[in-house]
Amino acid sequence: MLKITILGCYAATPRTFSNPTSQVVELKNHVFLLDCAEGTQVQLRRNKVKFSKIEHIFISHLHGDHFFGLIGLISTFMLLGRTAPLHVYGPVGIKEIILLQLKHSGAWTPYELHFHELSSKTPELIFEDEKVTVHTVPLNHRIYTNGFVIREKVGLRKLNIGAAERYGIPKLYYRNIVLGKDILLEDGRTVSNLDLTFEADPPKSYAYCSDTAYHEPVCDAISGVTVLYHEATFLEAEREVATRTMHSTAQDAARIAKKANVGTLILGHYSTRYDDLTAFENEAKQFFSPVWLADDGRIFEF
Amino acid sequence: MLKITILGCYAATPRTFSNPTSQVVELKNHVFLLDCAEGTQVQLRRNKVKFSKIEHIFISHLHGDHFFGLIGLISTFMLLGRTAPLHVYGPVGIKEIILLQLKHSGAWTPYELHFHELSSKTPELIFEDEKVTVHTVPLNHRIYTNGFVIREKVGLRKLNIGAAERYGIPKLYYRNIVLGKDILLEDGRTVSNLDLTFEADPPKSYAYCSDTAYHEPVCDAISGVTVLYHEATFLEAEREVATRTMHSTAQDAARIAKKANVGTLILGHYSTRYDDLTAFENEAKQFFSPVWLADDGRIFEF
Repeated sequence: MLKITILGCYAATPRTFSNPTSQVVELKNHVFLLDCAEGTQVQLRRNKVKFSKIEHIFISHLHGDHFFGLIGLISTFMLLGRTAPLHVYGPVGIKEIILLQLKHSGAWTPYELHFHELSSKTPELIFEDEKVTVHTVPLNHRIYTNGFVIREKVGLRKLNIGAAERYGIPKLYYRNIVLGKDILLEDGRTVSNLDLTFEADPPKSYAYCSDTAYHEPVCDAISGVTVLYHEATFLEAEREVATRTMHSTAQDAARIAKKANVGTLILGHYSTRYDDLTAFENEAKQFFSPVWLADDGRIFEF
Repeated sequence: MLKITILGCYAATPRTFSNPTSQVVELKNHVFLLDCAEGTQVQLRRNKVKFSKIEHIFISHLHGDHFFGLIGLISTFMLLGRTAPLHVYGPVGIKEIILLQLKHSGAWTPYELHFHELSSKTPELIFEDEKVTVHTVPLNHRIYTNGFVIREKVGLRKLNIGAAERYGIPKLYYRNIVLGKDILLEDGRTVSNLDLTFEADPPKSYAYCSDTAYHEPVCDAISGVTVLYHEATFLEAEREVATRTMHSTAQDAARIAKKANVGTLILGHYSTRYDDLTAFENEAKQFFSPVWLADDGRIFEF
């Protein structure tokens, strides 16, 4: 299952009832934190995300509404006695900013703190294990910014028990079948693995694009993902502000979703000038559906 | 009037219902912000403090639970279009930390941002105008830390209208009386200003001591203040932890209040291990009274 928990999805400043950007993405036993604005650690508590499960934090860019909560979270991990390593991925400069503050607070993390500083202007693989990859998606914003694509790898094919029973294959061999092996029967015949298994579940994938102006080059990198979260700071009426501040409108996000042929679009990063968000959905739906609206505390499962 | 608004008064990490240290002190038209933990700007909004009124921010030390909200507040001032200068007082290092983050965010404040870096180990005058002074109070903590004493200056003597009328002094001269002048009557006699005025109101003063181990040298600097806010992170049962972490117990705070002969003691900076705070009041009252317990959102007026 792919699970996205929106901790904050508003632009600019933290307010009493709206939080700047941070979200938790769970896939294949990973709990990834994407961006970490001021207030993220309180939002993690409110949404009952276990701090100790977070091992990888991805920071899109060094605007405050995406990373001012990082130093606090790193410090809290320290106070909670964390021992597991923590990996932080973000633009060049992030390491200096965090270490300078740790130095002046006279503290040092009792856990390994690894920084992976990013500067590439083309997509790159920044994390990989047996089950998942994470690539950057260079965006087009006022300062160096990356989105991220988290992709599940194609899993193992699934056992066709009916077929295995028809061939009289002992259960003892089922594990080999799942691992992809052909089976030699007692009568000397070989049964192809394809005849004993079903296709693996289609791998799920999630693309996160915040913040960016309308930027078609991202479509290659996020092509066909299950879910795209794309910023939509403004509506069409504020097109001029969007252009000037290098942000997207809801329509921009929908156009990207369509060109990239994604499964579902989630909108977020709304300017706090809007009280009612339904216009975001309506404007986006002119170009793409399904469209969902992110909101603080909302959980999406795919 | 001296008004203290507690934005946060808990130690260590921000939690859903408790905020780390920050408070607003209002005296003689000044709105001083003392410490600025993560979440301070949201607490300012919740407590309806006008952002534009804040012109001086005093940071006691560079532990996160006292200053991780500063960069966010400075950025928000920027987004709100502030033009008035802002003065930040805090330990050496604070300027580098803030400017490094502004640099990486590609932003610059459209208002003057003045840093007053502190390193003295003896009390010093760091702010003064016609009506108010602010001095540092060096504390004894794990890293370089200052408390602050905010003192109202002795005001003008108050007009004794009855006396002025008895001498038949025209109202036209009342302003001169208030400004301290003697008055020459039409019959040639001089009336001393002391005969035409009452004593000025006793000036109010506020001392803020967070964080510190029990530290008697502060008593000189805070002697006789109207109100002392003193940290009380622990109860006596946790004396050993208090000593090791260089924090105070409620009794330590009360002993300092007594020795310094202050008017009222406010306790705060409680460890989040305590659910019930009444024991703090009880333990302190064995040595001093009156004692008040700070709590987030609580307002004290003197």
